[in-house]
Amino acid sequence: MADPSFISQRGSTEAVEEGLALAPKFDADGLITCVATEAGSGEVLMVAHMNAEALRRTIESGEAWYYSRSRKSLWRKGETSGHVQRVVEMRIDCDQDAVWIKVEQLGPGACHTGRRSCFYRAVPLGKAGAVTLEFRDGDKSFDPKAVYRDKA
Amino acid sequence: MADPSFISQRGSTEAVEEGLALAPKFDADGLITCVATEAGSGEVLMVAHMNAEALRRTIESGEAWYYSRSRKSLWRKGETSGHVQRVVEMRIDCDQDAVWIKVEQLGPGACHTGRRSCFYRAVPLGKAGAVTLEFRDGDKSFDPKAVYRDKA
Repeated sequence: MADPSFISQRGSTEAVEEGLALAPKFDADGLITCVATEAGSGEVLMVAHMNAEALRRTIESGEAWYYSRSRKSLWRKGETSGHVQRVVEMRIDCDQDAVWIKVEQLGPGACHTGRRSCFYRAVPLGKAGAVTLEFRDGDKSFDPKAVYRDKA
Repeated sequence: MADPSFISQRGSTEAVEEGLALAPKFDADGLITCVATEAGSGEVLMVAHMNAEALRRTIESGEAWYYSRSRKSLWRKGETSGHVQRVVEMRIDCDQDAVWIKVEQLGPGACHTGRRSCFYRAVPLGKAGAVTLEFRDGDKSFDPKAVYRDKA
């Protein structure tokens, strides 16, 4: 269990939005959404989730920890790949149900598919009907099979 | 109901991650996470949710539509405040459970509290124990009481 002492009870809307206490709104699964952007470029690298323990470890260590919903486990970003995220700044939003971390992404990329960012496909705008995605920055910057070789 | 014709059935992991079909993974409530960043600065303005209909309308119109979980209704960003978001580019992530829109934010801000961004407080890093948030870019750019005057 996470030491809950770093988290405050959620008070009034005014307190949550204008106060200085960290009072995250975890969802029914105990998770909060986290957006990681690259500090230099502003590019969104990934969207993932944190539970209280991942949030605490990220705050204390300055490195990104997440909670994997598929693996149902705490996950230090880069623990397998070495592609650690150093957190330059963490922010929380008005109703405290999302955090934004600006990171320095170590290694060639954040995405398990081998790209720098998970957002390597664009959705064309201004048209109705069936959508055909378009690759953008879709070249792989590393070989995921080699990086994750020893993992299932 | 949304016309589902713009959405494809989710196939294999390979198809979802490397294919060109839009096959979003909506959660149990029928929602997908959306991150809106300011096209010019790369600043994260807000994190919100879209249902299939909000996604379809955003794609077709090039303006941001969301689904409000608190109001349980479709919501055109700016419909009350006039602070419309023009979508410059939309991207979808590897497993298609999050979208990223780069927007031009019309008007003084995106946040219902009166700030440009919802992320106006920082979480200090590198310390254990109780957290005290710090305002960053916390000045209000508009008066929410005036802008939302006629709304509950």
